[in-house]
Amino acid sequence: MDDAKNTRSGSQGLMLAEVREQPDAVARCLDANQEAAARVGEAIRSRGIRYAVIAARGTSDHAAIYAKYLLETTIGLPVALAAPSVTTLYKRPLNLKDSLVMGVSQSGQGTDVVEVIAAAKKAGAYTVGVTNFEDSPLATTPDEALLLRAGVERSVAATKTYTTSLAALGLIAARAAQDEALERELRATPDQLNAVLELNDTVRDAAERYTYIAHCLSVARGINQCTALEAGLKLAETSYIMMHAYSGADLEHGPMAVLDQSVPCILFNVEGEAHEAMLGLAKKIGERGAERLMIAHDEASLKAADHGIRIPVRVPERVSPLVYIAAAQMFAYHLAIHRGNDPDNPRGLKKVTQTV
Amino acid sequence: MDDAKNTRSGSQGLMLAEVREQPDAVARCLDANQEAAARVGEAIRSRGIRYAVIAARGTSDHAAIYAKYLLETTIGLPVALAAPSVTTLYKRPLNLKDSLVMGVSQSGQGTDVVEVIAAAKKAGAYTVGVTNFEDSPLATTPDEALLLRAGVERSVAATKTYTTSLAALGLIAARAAQDEALERELRATPDQLNAVLELNDTVRDAAERYTYIAHCLSVARGINQCTALEAGLKLAETSYIMMHAYSGADLEHGPMAVLDQSVPCILFNVEGEAHEAMLGLAKKIGERGAERLMIAHDEASLKAADHGIRIPVRVPERVSPLVYIAAAQMFAYHLAIHRGNDPDNPRGLKKVTQTV
Repeated sequence: MDDAKNTRSGSQGLMLAEVREQPDAVARCLDANQEAAARVGEAIRSRGIRYAVIAARGTSDHAAIYAKYLLETTIGLPVALAAPSVTTLYKRPLNLKDSLVMGVSQSGQGTDVVEVIAAAKKAGAYTVGVTNFEDSPLATTPDEALLLRAGVERSVAATKTYTTSLAALGLIAARAAQDEALERELRATPDQLNAVLELNDTVRDAAERYTYIAHCLSVARGINQCTALEAGLKLAETSYIMMHAYSGADLEHGPMAVLDQSVPCILFNVEGEAHEAMLGLAKKIGERGAERLMIAHDEASLKAADHGIRIPVRVPERVSPLVYIAAAQMFAYHLAIHRGNDPDNPRGLKKVTQTV
Repeated sequence: MDDAKNTRSGSQGLMLAEVREQPDAVARCLDANQEAAARVGEAIRSRGIRYAVIAARGTSDHAAIYAKYLLETTIGLPVALAAPSVTTLYKRPLNLKDSLVMGVSQSGQGTDVVEVIAAAKKAGAYTVGVTNFEDSPLATTPDEALLLRAGVERSVAATKTYTTSLAALGLIAARAAQDEALERELRATPDQLNAVLELNDTVRDAAERYTYIAHCLSVARGINQCTALEAGLKLAETSYIMMHAYSGADLEHGPMAVLDQSVPCILFNVEGEAHEAMLGLAKKIGERGAERLMIAHDEASLKAADHGIRIPVRVPERVSPLVYIAAAQMFAYHLAIHRGNDPDNPRGLKKVTQTV
């Protein structure tokens, strides 16, 4: 069935079209940011940077969480996610000597993120912007800018600006760590994304079962915490589902109580350091009576769940967030269509959100 | 009506009894930690501490978020919340020279939190534990420990160990900042908590309206982000409600789309720097058709909502999380009773949660 017709809504298929642009967009972003990422990597090594702070909101905040795990695990650089209101509401300058402060915003217009960067630059931090708009304040204010080169994103739900943000931040980590293997792994993700995009019909059919859910959970562990969060946000934005996203460990500290057979869980698992912990969590979730939809490549993970979407390629854990999210984006798109919503124009949202 | 009888469940009223112990527990915690907090404050000033990392899970993670806002706004010390899996799953040591690393865990047994502290100590960080158990690894492993002195907490849902954690962390900030006004404000919270506890019947009656809700949101801005998160967790734990908690700014970046008349929102607002932003958010939430229950002291906030619980005392914003949460704890307790649940023994949870 044609995607544009498979709808009771007014969707033009913008979101899905942009999901499909991601392999090209990620490749373009990696090409375009070689030099900027090399300069940032060099600065991290040569300036005695002690720690990093990243300011971002919404989808970009999930990219920031990826950067936290990646920078901490590759070069041991502690990363804090900024509380922008400390700058915007409380007007308190932080002591940011010898720090790297990065802002991530697709529009580059987010007042709070830009204010954090401006205050950090004033406080002597080395500042970096990651944005899709080269004339935006987030491109022009900081010491260095990485431009996503994702092309204009017309769908309100961010997709290609998310994966390109991951690519840009991944490239910074690769250059800071002088880790050529990581860069090669990033370079392999466009082909892997293409392989996942082939699953479109499979994902559409798998999503139909969940048309009338009232709420659900998405769960991952370790570096894919960003994937669970971003999957949850896409579902909230496009299907208006009360969607909780958890690091698996946090789920066990309380929220596990909400689980019963009425709360399906979307789980992400990748072969790597978090793999075994996630299998254990899948078992515990099953014991609570909740249905598990597993998005994974390996047989053990798929067997540990009630339903599965098999990622057709094996992806190194540390770049897997760039690839696995595509399955969740398609899932969110098709679920919205099944529910009669317009995924391209979510109610109550605008493309550029201004918060202080 | 007697609380213990106002139930279709097996509740013994443990949770409510512990909620009521909080004024004494907080006062005891502040008394007992004068010297330890002074030593930590002195160490922050004299050791050239550049930034802090806090490791915690669940309720303790919300105390860590309070500490982040408080330390950043009082002494400008950037604070990162640890991703414990970087240590426990990925086994990657962080470069923690000249940092303060704190662990918060009521049991002091959380393997992941203790591992982060042990690794940080090895990496040369100055380490502090905040726990209710003096013989626990979190009390004996770090350079310094603050003991909560909350007494044994028998209810699975943490209440008095949360507010005493806020008190202990608040005392550290007061001593690090040499801010005697902050310490006086902390010392005033037990009386303010007593005033809030007087609202028990009011809160019980206000909660009844929400007996059959499927899900809800709790929202705050600025330093009360911890209050929104902790209120959400209490409701999830005791009433099994799919409960999203948001910083108001993050809500606008996407999740706003889920709001309609089926999703009541609990809002917290306090006179201070975040007050006006929160009033604006209340308006936007109302425009989405969602019902707003406001927990606040000031008339403007109460008038900006559909329903209200008036906090009878004016509390300085920076210590308000210690006081306002008591209203949410009582709300969660009574809502669980209205729903026929046992708030003292949530399904699927144990008192001590072990995660790696």
